[in-house]
Amino acid sequence: MSEEKRKTAISWVETEGILVRGYRMEELIGRISWAEAVYLILKGELPPKPISRMLEAILVSVIDHGVGPPSTVSAVTAANTGASVSAAVAAGLLAINSRHGGAVEDCMGVLQDCVCTQDRDGIGAAEAAERAIAEHRARQRRIPGYGHRVHRVDPRTARLFELSEELKIAGKYVHQAREMERALLSLTGKPLPINADGAIAALLCELDFPKEVANGIFMIARVPGLVAHVSEEHARGRPMRTVDPNAYEYDGPPPRRLTKVDEKETDEE
Amino acid sequence: MSEEKRKTAISWVETEGILVRGYRMEELIGRISWAEAVYLILKGELPPKPISRMLEAILVSVIDHGVGPPSTVSAVTAANTGASVSAAVAAGLLAINSRHGGAVEDCMGVLQDCVCTQDRDGIGAAEAAERAIAEHRARQRRIPGYGHRVHRVDPRTARLFELSEELKIAGKYVHQAREMERALLSLTGKPLPINADGAIAALLCELDFPKEVANGIFMIARVPGLVAHVSEEHARGRPMRTVDPNAYEYDGPPPRRLTKVDEKETDEE
Amino acid sequence: MSEEKRKTAISWVETEGILVRGYRMEELIGRISWAEAVYLILKGELPPKPISRMLEAILVSVIDHGVGPPSTVSAVTAANTGASVSAAVAAGLLAINSRHGGAVEDCMGVLQDCVCTQDRDGIGAAEAAERAIAEHRARQRRIPGYGHRVHRVDPRTARLFELSEELKIAGKYVHQAREMERALLSLTGKPLPINADGAIAALLCELDFPKEVANGIFMIARVPGLVAHVSEEHARGRPMRTVDPNAYEYDGPPPRRLTKVDEKETDEE
Amino acid sequence: MSEEKRKTAISWVETEGILVRGYRMEELIGRISWAEAVYLILKGELPPKPISRMLEAILVSVIDHGVGPPSTVSAVTAANTGASVSAAVAAGLLAINSRHGGAVEDCMGVLQDCVCTQDRDGIGAAEAAERAIAEHRARQRRIPGYGHRVHRVDPRTARLFELSEELKIAGKYVHQAREMERALLSLTGKPLPINADGAIAALLCELDFPKEVANGIFMIARVPGLVAHVSEEHARGRPMRTVDPNAYEYDGPPPRRLTKVDEKETDEE
Repeated sequence: MSEEKRKTAISWVETEGILVRGYRMEELIGRISWAEAVYLILKGELPPKPISRMLEAILVSVIDHGVGPPSTVSAVTAANTGASVSAAVAAGLLAINSRHGGAVEDCMGVLQDCVCTQDRDGIGAAEAAERAIAEHRARQRRIPGYGHRVHRVDPRTARLFELSEELKIAGKYVHQAREMERALLSLTGKPLPINADGAIAALLCELDFPKEVANGIFMIARVPGLVAHVSEEHARGRPMRTVDPNAYEYDGPPPRRLTKVDEKETDEE
Repeated sequence: MSEEKRKTAISWVETEGILVRGYRMEELIGRISWAEAVYLILKGELPPKPISRMLEAILVSVIDHGVGPPSTVSAVTAANTGASVSAAVAAGLLAINSRHGGAVEDCMGVLQDCVCTQDRDGIGAAEAAERAIAEHRARQRRIPGYGHRVHRVDPRTARLFELSEELKIAGKYVHQAREMERALLSLTGKPLPINADGAIAALLCELDFPKEVANGIFMIARVPGLVAHVSEEHARGRPMRTVDPNAYEYDGPPPRRLTKVDEKETDEE
Repeated sequence: MSEEKRKTAISWVETEGILVRGYRMEELIGRISWAEAVYLILKGELPPKPISRMLEAILVSVIDHGVGPPSTVSAVTAANTGASVSAAVAAGLLAINSRHGGAVEDCMGVLQDCVCTQDRDGIGAAEAAERAIAEHRARQRRIPGYGHRVHRVDPRTARLFELSEELKIAGKYVHQAREMERALLSLTGKPLPINADGAIAALLCELDFPKEVANGIFMIARVPGLVAHVSEEHARGRPMRTVDPNAYEYDGPPPRRLTKVDEKETDEE
Repeated sequence: MSEEKRKTAISWVETEGILVRGYRMEELIGRISWAEAVYLILKGELPPKPISRMLEAILVSVIDHGVGPPSTVSAVTAANTGASVSAAVAAGLLAINSRHGGAVEDCMGVLQDCVCTQDRDGIGAAEAAERAIAEHRARQRRIPGYGHRVHRVDPRTARLFELSEELKIAGKYVHQAREMERALLSLTGKPLPINADGAIAALLCELDFPKEVANGIFMIARVPGLVAHVSEEHARGRPMRTVDPNAYEYDGPPPRRLTKVDEKETDEE
């Protein structure tokens, strides 16, 4: 079977070296941050500093969310039966789909549509939000990225948005996301605050990522959490136990504060 | 079936907030780097700056290695059939095992054994290396982490070790790794330079990671590369093509240099 | 979090026994065939004999298709890196999607639509086929289940259809599938014979399976082939080889015929 | 990179046809049973009738075991988040490992060791069993394949062994398995009856399967159950529910008996 050559623009490996999006790997090591490397591999260019700092904050915010998410349950269930770290983490990723992690992609779609509608119809963010809510209601759907199973107010949202203001990243998508929150409250009468998925959706729009990569970014950020839970299950889990996210007790370090010396040096500038 | 509660020390989620190893998530966002977050979730404490910078460099060095590695082949093969991003990346992770990625763990084991032997038998690194090589030969095995299928000299090794000197991370494990390289050359007569797996093995030992987590760190670092290849296959791959790592052409940016402005601010200190 | 109980109609396990769709497991063992068990677990009732024999033939026809299919490539690639049998087979399944295996589901959809159109508009199978082809062309799509990358004429099709005649299973869907083949030839001028996916699609419609379960049946049938290839790779594969489906030689038994004594007793009635 | 050709003995696909272990696929379809096809693909030859009937009974006995097994939990958890059928079943397989399904392989190893010891040391099955139990106790391990989390007496065991007597399959491994049960009772004072894993282990030894393929056979048999649970979750599961195997109610058909007409014709001979 003759096959024409497929082209790749990501990276290239030869006897003499490794190119990543045109840069020599040995030049990148130790000189760019992880968030810059992630942005480079996904989008093909190195980002401006505020963007890489925003992306790094997003990744940190997703790194783990306790024993409850389906991806953690699936990874720990596999680990408990004796799966290797890679097989157990793979089982975890298989539970990251439209309904878990997927709210980021869906919310990006809603926000992008609203911003398009603003431009096309010459309306404001508030009206665009109301129209989107009406359309979702007509199809008996909820606006993704608002409300949370566990948190009344998602503690990650305010911090992510605050940072986006500091870094001057916040623009029309963050504005639209907030107008949506207001519209949901006024139209439904009950508070449906932006959750972390919604906040990240708005910020990834500001960072000009396509929505199709949202689940990919979610996975990039969550794998360390899955590795940690799988390692812990290998170390502490009773064989063939039923994995029940509601039957856990926390015995990690008690609540503690970040001291000045823990913080990133770049933060002090 | 009554189940006693399993304990977790990683993170805890309640209505009011999220604790990660005791820290409130909203305090971590934007204040710690990704490498600090990874270290924290895996080891339970925030690392000193040099350690987080070394870990970040390691993660960047692993982020991608072209279209050839089995994990990329497996991910792209699944993506080509229509797998979702998460299913295709999971297929990629399932090809990270003892033989792909696993050299890091195996090499960590060899280096740790050598350092133990040094202490126990009062011998030097050179002699410990020779013993290890003799034992491996007796079992007809190669020392993991030396030589490379593609690279004559792995370009990542020198840069990683250089950085470890700058950061004052290099210690007895890096020393042992280099003595092993010398012993392999003198005993086999052919150059078997330390590859990136071997260099990372030595450095993860210096960072006091247990060898069981090596594949986990490899996966944390490689997932962005897998996401990029899967996205590219979704965008550019002809349906039901045979995925052949030798039938690719590179059409990314031509070789280019990192300019001063691209570099991390922390690097200029 | 209080959860209402989810209901399951598939099976039930208690201290005293196992119920499968209401039947006691110990009563099923040795008394029903595998195809009957598969039909029972998927559809809730035991099938008439001709249906279970047709289903068994379908499963046998899918059991393997050489080293070339993406699912085999993905499974063997993972196995070569040291993946366990279950992890490698899982990697294989992750390459069974809309484009591999998925033609069965898509073709079932086309045939069901054609049969609906026949009833609704009072037209014949030939006209329904022509309309479907025209619609697919307008969207620049091919009719799934016709033509094959490797086989000029798929050897499984004639045998499956022959058997469906013997068992009196062939009805309006097999008829529609054949009319589609004729229409494709007359409209395109080139032969696009029904492949095994298309034949199985027609037969699963005759057996009244919903199209959503087509990929499930494909996997049920293909797992033994994947297990065989993974076991062979574990036994014979050189570590870290590049898995190339075009770089294989066959060294199994030479072509041989099924003797009378090999055949199923039920076949002789 | 030049690669020598890898050899495969499993199957071969050419323009004109498909060979499975030397047989033409179109000759196998409708003429051999599923169990014969599984045996052929795994072992390279068609089995005698009693062996294929025993294997078919084993496969049926494993087809499902309710909502509780880790593989079902993992598959359903992934399905609930929106995973495709193939991704969700893959997640299920990733929970089939040394501890789930793996007891078959481990028990096969114990029984094979016992039978070897009998021959080598000229002792009987009872003494071989006692030695094996002593060795396991010394390493603080349980004999795999005895006792069950849910069943006091596993209903599958008696039926599988009964059938093996009828088919004249039962030999030294079934005998050894029963002596082990007796020895466990007399040495521990508490009943640890052979469970289905143990019974299947003894029977796969009688069928001359290598123990490395045990997990593969378990997967071949369990995939239909996983497909059924995944389909049911797609149809009936509330999005983002916590999958709890203890929070289910059965609403399938009430207990019912297999009627004569349901049974396999071959059974009546």
